[in-house]
Amino acid sequence: MIEVIGLDGDDTLWHSETHFAEAHDTFARVLTPYTGDGLDVVARQYATERRNLELFGYGIKGFTLSMIETAIDVTDGRITALELAELLELGKKMLAHPVDLLDGVTEAVAALAATHRLVLVTKGDLFHQEQKVARSGVADQFERVEIVSEKDEATYRRVIGAMGVAPESFLMVGNTVRSDVLPVLAIGGHAVQVPYALTWGHEVVDDHDATFPVLPRLADLPAWLAIRG
Amino acid sequence: MIEVIGLDGDDTLWHSETHFAEAHDTFARVLTPYTGDGLDVVARQYATERRNLELFGYGIKGFTLSMIETAIDVTDGRITALELAELLELGKKMLAHPVDLLDGVTEAVAALAATHRLVLVTKGDLFHQEQKVARSGVADQFERVEIVSEKDEATYRRVIGAMGVAPESFLMVGNTVRSDVLPVLAIGGHAVQVPYALTWGHEVVDDHDATFPVLPRLADLPAWLAIRG
Repeated sequence: MIEVIGLDGDDTLWHSETHFAEAHDTFARVLTPYTGDGLDVVARQYATERRNLELFGYGIKGFTLSMIETAIDVTDGRITALELAELLELGKKMLAHPVDLLDGVTEAVAALAATHRLVLVTKGDLFHQEQKVARSGVADQFERVEIVSEKDEATYRRVIGAMGVAPESFLMVGNTVRSDVLPVLAIGGHAVQVPYALTWGHEVVDDHDATFPVLPRLADLPAWLAIRG
Repeated sequence: MIEVIGLDGDDTLWHSETHFAEAHDTFARVLTPYTGDGLDVVARQYATERRNLELFGYGIKGFTLSMIETAIDVTDGRITALELAELLELGKKMLAHPVDLLDGVTEAVAALAATHRLVLVTKGDLFHQEQKVARSGVADQFERVEIVSEKDEATYRRVIGAMGVAPESFLMVGNTVRSDVLPVLAIGGHAVQVPYALTWGHEVVDDHDATFPVLPRLADLPAWLAIRG
């Protein structure tokens, strides 16, 4: 019997990866005069981000610093300061962007809150995630908000403990298999994936043999719970 | 009777502002060829940081982005990408810097943990603060670690509530009057200031009439508590 439902934030409640993809378009446009079409600057950006992850963690500030680093790198320092200012501005626009909830999220969260205790479990920059939660309009439906630096087994153990339930009474719902599904299943909890149209390369895992329910939209969860119990 | 002691991290347990001051020296050295000595580039950097605070929050990633923005700004875009790469590298070095505990902190924290329940209450970037706590060597002495985006009355109410005590049983100890002392006194808790040699301009408050004990070093706190009770 599920008592507590954990919901992911980025790309589960609100759009996130779409904004990164749009930023990549601008990034490529700024750099193409230097690199031509031959160089995959977005792949280089991913590589910089991966390399900087242990220093920056997740979030848009680190992404922006990695864009600037990549731009300097792939142009051998020929990019101008004003073009770099454009990338800086791009990062600031992403941070200031209003929260876009996915379709049906407001109603789905209200329906879930009527039958279950909810906890929001979201990864990334504390300051920006707090702002997004506050602006989302659904924060009041959650008993607890947990902004974490990594979604691993230890994190979920702590969050589930803070909610005062056993793992078998906890269901996590989110878009990524790596962060929202596998660590929860590993500690004896339940998980449902609601995939997003885009997944950040870092979050893609193919080498697992876990089986779990996949629902097309968060709005399908209340009905699924009603049947599953 | 004090039951729980809250300790601040940056500039109370470990050096932080010193590293920012060193960074300012490098920043000024990189910019002086463009601006001469006439322009106070560090003051301009402070102004950029203040302006970006509501977008970036606290921490070194935001500081680094603000350095890059200021450098482009005060040179009217004439600074080169390679010089900006130097500022980026400076930010990365700050993030990777080992944790330098203040003198006597290890012993003081151990002594306090023997007589009181401890909670670390530190402000800033979640990812970097978690790394600093983990590397500090004193994390095990704390019952709880709270990394928060702002140290205001609401934050302290939540932290004190999570420790399960009343505000009058809580003592906060830290270097800044604005973040570690005033909000705690305002909600009925106790506070002791242990000043640091440097205080970030943003944290300086002069217009208050609160009175509170000031101790020269954290190492003086156990003896102070023994007398005060």
